[in-house]
Amino acid sequence: MQILGTFDVNSAFLTVSQLSQRSGLPLATTHRVVSELEQFGLLERERDKTYRIGVRLWEIACRTPGALGIREIAMPYLQEIHFAVRQHAQLGILQGHDVLFLERLSTRNAVVNVTLIGGRLPLHASSSGLVLLAHGPGSLQDEVLSSELVKYTKDTVQSPAHLRRLLAQIREQGHAVGNGFIHPHARGIAVPVYGMQETVVAAISVVIPNDATPTLPTVRLLKDAAHQVSTALRAAYLPLGDPHDPQSTVGGKYRTLVNSSMNSMDFFARHRQNHSL
Amino acid sequence: MQILGTFDVNSAFLTVSQLSQRSGLPLATTHRVVSELEQFGLLERERDKTYRIGVRLWEIACRTPGALGIREIAMPYLQEIHFAVRQHAQLGILQGHDVLFLERLSTRNAVVNVTLIGGRLPLHASSSGLVLLAHGPGSLQDEVLSSELVKYTKDTVQSPAHLRRLLAQIREQGHAVGNGFIHPHARGIAVPVYGMQETVVAAISVVIPNDATPTLPTVRLLKDAAHQVSTALRAAYLPLGDPHDPQSTVGGKYRTLVNSSMNSMDFFARHRQNHSL
Repeated sequence: MQILGTFDVNSAFLTVSQLSQRSGLPLATTHRVVSELEQFGLLERERDKTYRIGVRLWEIACRTPGALGIREIAMPYLQEIHFAVRQHAQLGILQGHDVLFLERLSTRNAVVNVTLIGGRLPLHASSSGLVLLAHGPGSLQDEVLSSELVKYTKDTVQSPAHLRRLLAQIREQGHAVGNGFIHPHARGIAVPVYGMQETVVAAISVVIPNDATPTLPTVRLLKDAAHQVSTALRAAYLPLGDPHDPQSTVGGKYRTLVNSSMNSMDFFARHRQNHSL
Repeated sequence: MQILGTFDVNSAFLTVSQLSQRSGLPLATTHRVVSELEQFGLLERERDKTYRIGVRLWEIACRTPGALGIREIAMPYLQEIHFAVRQHAQLGILQGHDVLFLERLSTRNAVVNVTLIGGRLPLHASSSGLVLLAHGPGSLQDEVLSSELVKYTKDTVQSPAHLRRLLAQIREQGHAVGNGFIHPHARGIAVPVYGMQETVVAAISVVIPNDATPTLPTVRLLKDAAHQVSTALRAAYLPLGDPHDPQSTVGGKYRTLVNSSMNSMDFFARHRQNHSL
């Protein structure tokens, strides 16, 4: 983990000595661990002897319903938003004090946007983050508002009092708008996605040019989509305590497998036991 | 790895005793390893005490250019295909004796399709696999054709001689068509994506209903898209030995960061050193 954790978006290729430096592990230990990780396919060696995270790790990671389950369910609606807006459409969830982006759809000529798939942004600066923070526990809000808040632009909101008012407004209006909070050219608009028990489980957002275009039509588009995702998300839970389904539990649980094609879901449900794909 | 590797698409939630059984590790060892993995966020405990792969693992895995780099580059073109075909559009790469799917876009009412993101299919049965096999090394073809070939339907090609003819035809025509090879209702059409040095690095495909619709227009659509992805892919390599870029190497290398929005790429390139996102 110390080795794997040293890779970041700006350093996707690292040599053994860089890995040793960044992880703080002795060079000999790093050599041994790297060679083990390479054997498992968790690291891959490039021709220039740098290493990158292995595709095998990504493959195993795809088994988490936490990331790809909700992404799969939201995808058809996210695509519709993207097709209407033709800029960036994205899906984010709360992870610690950040929003973690599960998906981003972009066009080639879309406005500047720092969101990466698998990348994070601080809660106070991104519109998705503000939605998740506004609907998060009070303790989270206290922690975030008392921590150091990064200033990206002159418009990034840093004052705790101002942020509290903004969060209250977001809860009341049902959406967040960030005009140039992260980059002066970019506007973020985000809405909450509700799961079971009316809890907010994700945010759907767009990043569009920060210009004079009215935001209301986009807000409506996002709210409609979020409502449909919420409905699909609830339908994706197994029936509560369904006696015919051995994986169904009293508390409700996501299906282990989700797919945006209903025919495929039916097929998988019928063939769950007799083959592994 | 023994623990993480036991999860599969049909078993996304497992108890400690299931993990012990499947991994072959003693129960006490499993308990200890699971608790370590949970600390790192690589496993997450559900309320019913089952475990699932952690979102943190997915986050680290997103740092591999091997999976998300090519996916990001191909995405705008894949979306165009998907919008035209309105069934399934997918992107796959060669991993061992399988095709590993990096992306799949589907509509709610699309035809049955067993492809999962992060899921694999055998090379001889899927149209993407056939394209990758046809352009793969001769040794791979020998290995695959001499191994046991799964029969999904009466139309799955199992005879090595028949497969060799099919592979030659795919190379000649530049595309593969699988009519009901995996499910009688589904037709796969796939084309190769070329990277540097005219090597095939991926396959773009659609899964559509297996009916009387002519395939030629879809083949053309796929070939056009694959050509554009190949061009974008070559442009995504760093300039060979660019003296202004410390990460540029003689052999050529993907940029560590790829994004389908050109404005965002420019922004990242200019800000690479002075902040971590």
